[in-house]
Amino acid sequence: MKIAVMGYGTVGSGVVEVIETHVSSISKGTNGEKMEVAKILDLRDFPDDSHAALFTKDFNDILNDPEIKVVAETMGGVNPAFDFTMKLLKAGKSVVSSNKELVAQKGPELLQMAEESGSNYLFEASVGGGIPIIRPMSQCLVANNIEGIAGILNGTTNFILTKMIEDGMTFADALKLAQDNGFAEKDPTADVEGFDACRKVCILASLAFGKHVYPNQVETEGISNITLEDVSYIEGANGVIKLLGQIKKLSDDKIAAFVSPAVVWNGSQLASVNGVFNAILVRGDAVGDVCFYGQGAGKLPTASAVVADMVDCVKHIDRKKFFGWGEGAEDYVVDYKDSIEMPFYVRAKATENKVKSAFGEVKFLSRIGQPSDEKAFITDKMTQNELSKRLEGFEVINTIKVTNY
Amino acid sequence: MKIAVMGYGTVGSGVVEVIETHVSSISKGTNGEKMEVAKILDLRDFPDDSHAALFTKDFNDILNDPEIKVVAETMGGVNPAFDFTMKLLKAGKSVVSSNKELVAQKGPELLQMAEESGSNYLFEASVGGGIPIIRPMSQCLVANNIEGIAGILNGTTNFILTKMIEDGMTFADALKLAQDNGFAEKDPTADVEGFDACRKVCILASLAFGKHVYPNQVETEGISNITLEDVSYIEGANGVIKLLGQIKKLSDDKIAAFVSPAVVWNGSQLASVNGVFNAILVRGDAVGDVCFYGQGAGKLPTASAVVADMVDCVKHIDRKKFFGWGEGAEDYVVDYKDSIEMPFYVRAKATENKVKSAFGEVKFLSRIGQPSDEKAFITDKMTQNELSKRLEGFEVINTIKVTNY
Repeated sequence: MKIAVMGYGTVGSGVVEVIETHVSSISKGTNGEKMEVAKILDLRDFPDDSHAALFTKDFNDILNDPEIKVVAETMGGVNPAFDFTMKLLKAGKSVVSSNKELVAQKGPELLQMAEESGSNYLFEASVGGGIPIIRPMSQCLVANNIEGIAGILNGTTNFILTKMIEDGMTFADALKLAQDNGFAEKDPTADVEGFDACRKVCILASLAFGKHVYPNQVETEGISNITLEDVSYIEGANGVIKLLGQIKKLSDDKIAAFVSPAVVWNGSQLASVNGVFNAILVRGDAVGDVCFYGQGAGKLPTASAVVADMVDCVKHIDRKKFFGWGEGAEDYVVDYKDSIEMPFYVRAKATENKVKSAFGEVKFLSRIGQPSDEKAFITDKMTQNELSKRLEGFEVINTIKVTNY
Repeated sequence: MKIAVMGYGTVGSGVVEVIETHVSSISKGTNGEKMEVAKILDLRDFPDDSHAALFTKDFNDILNDPEIKVVAETMGGVNPAFDFTMKLLKAGKSVVSSNKELVAQKGPELLQMAEESGSNYLFEASVGGGIPIIRPMSQCLVANNIEGIAGILNGTTNFILTKMIEDGMTFADALKLAQDNGFAEKDPTADVEGFDACRKVCILASLAFGKHVYPNQVETEGISNITLEDVSYIEGANGVIKLLGQIKKLSDDKIAAFVSPAVVWNGSQLASVNGVFNAILVRGDAVGDVCFYGQGAGKLPTASAVVADMVDCVKHIDRKKFFGWGEGAEDYVVDYKDSIEMPFYVRAKATENKVKSAFGEVKFLSRIGQPSDEKAFITDKMTQNELSKRLEGFEVINTIKVTNY
């Protein structure tokens, strides 16, 4: 069967490579049907690439080729990927994507178009790169009411935090090392400020609870305020700081979803996820906690997930897979600050008495070099709004949520 | 759609419970089709059970009911589960199973019958209980050449080892605690001697590499020889002892597979899997390492995996899922002792000089209370046969494989 790839960057070139180097295993998965890369769409020139004959700059060469039935969209960004994908689906072609931004922003329209045209739109690679998560959640956990999800969804920030925790590097030095190693972009905003994790939270929440969640509904805080002093206090209490995406079901039509640094106690499966690795923990009412771990990015891991989706499309070429979710709603995602109770890590200039009078008996933390007028402690469970109220009059240096995953 | 459950023990009663308590999520998964428990087969009486009207002691009541199209086999054991399953598949009914012993012993015949009759035979719950592993491996990792698998596949032994490591309990005391807590049977042989893990290794190996592996092809060693002294030496070197099932691809038609205690260094995802939890690490050539973690046993976790398979059967009621593997061969699984090189932990009565003259420069380990004539060390990589040769003339106390996962 002929297939096409749109976008010949890291992931797209990986898709072509995986298809060419895994003929035998792919053919087993498709029950004998072979995949042939017929067209590669990219506006750039790749004069030295061995696939020169396959390149096109005209999207219509793919859209109008009736023999191309499955297309990988590895362009990234909303435009023109959205327009292209809509047209392909409308034409009855199946599309698989690694484009988390597109799915998070435009998922409902794309899924609706796939529904109407009887084509398939799959995107296992959009969350967690090569980690199997979309299919296990939608199929294996179907006999569960999912209660919540917590994930380390961004390898760049996890690499930076790991370097701060394990090697005592500052945030700035760890970021520079990540950039030097190719783990972080020159402009690292999307990673460091949590926007990338936010998009993945949207996709996970939509899949788990059946209604679309948009990025602007997920309050997002990055890791640039985390200091080595915070790392040190929390290490002393047997925990680590991770950038977590968290989703909680509150009722049949309310959820909370947010991205932020969070204290994870050692012993949690999430605490031992280091470097560029990702992990997603899903809590179901029957299955309990299950956790999926692996490389959340990278050429071949991500490409292998894209190709697995293409195999599934080839198998389902003449019929629709039942997969998707419905449109969202403005009041569906509630303000977590008012609705979720959790403990908090607080670091402030204060006396022990002042802390006790505001928070009662708390667990004080310590670090080497702690100034006598600085206190760090873990509060009881309360909402973020309650925390803010109790911290009025404090000279707060930092607060970090404590997760129960 | 009418379904039946064969075997009303822990898992079977859990299946009925999950179906009854998850009507809404199951119905979403089946695209609206409802599942109705029509018959429960068990030779025992359950006079106080609310499903009294559904019980039967006659298998033919299920076999001959044309409205029953999906059957859960949660009986355990090879007989009569094998005979029943063959008859149901032959009659065109789909069967899902949590019965690892049956799949490990009789997989090829059952899969062949499903193939011939166009029915589905699924068994997600047979490995790792509620952990999604069969479906992710067969679908999400299809664009990978799998290089190896290592798994903590038995909760009972992992609980015992965790108690030895974390609380310094002896093997005997930890086993008794597991029995008191219901984590271990009165006769704990199948767990403690590794037979349960062995069956799961057979299923994973068959799925990953396409040819059936039988339990008698997998050399199996349990944990009853592990002592607190071994735990202590390895803890001092920043590792833990786990009962691992390991599978390695050697060539296109040779694999090695074995179950044994193994040293896992901290930092591995497998090292932090504690208590009754299981984890399976799969190493693919494109995706790298992915790891699946969760409860490997228990009523509701296992039942939720059985029900997810039933949902899949309902969705595929009029067509065959492409899933399975071929018959095995006697020379397909080679003797790992001769073919796999790895480091070993060795504990022996010996002088440092004797160790050095047999093994060269090695890493010596230490523990509190270590007798002056006892040495423990980690060797270079070598085969087990090579190790045995070099240890000739030593008074060996214990040797443990060191894993590279």
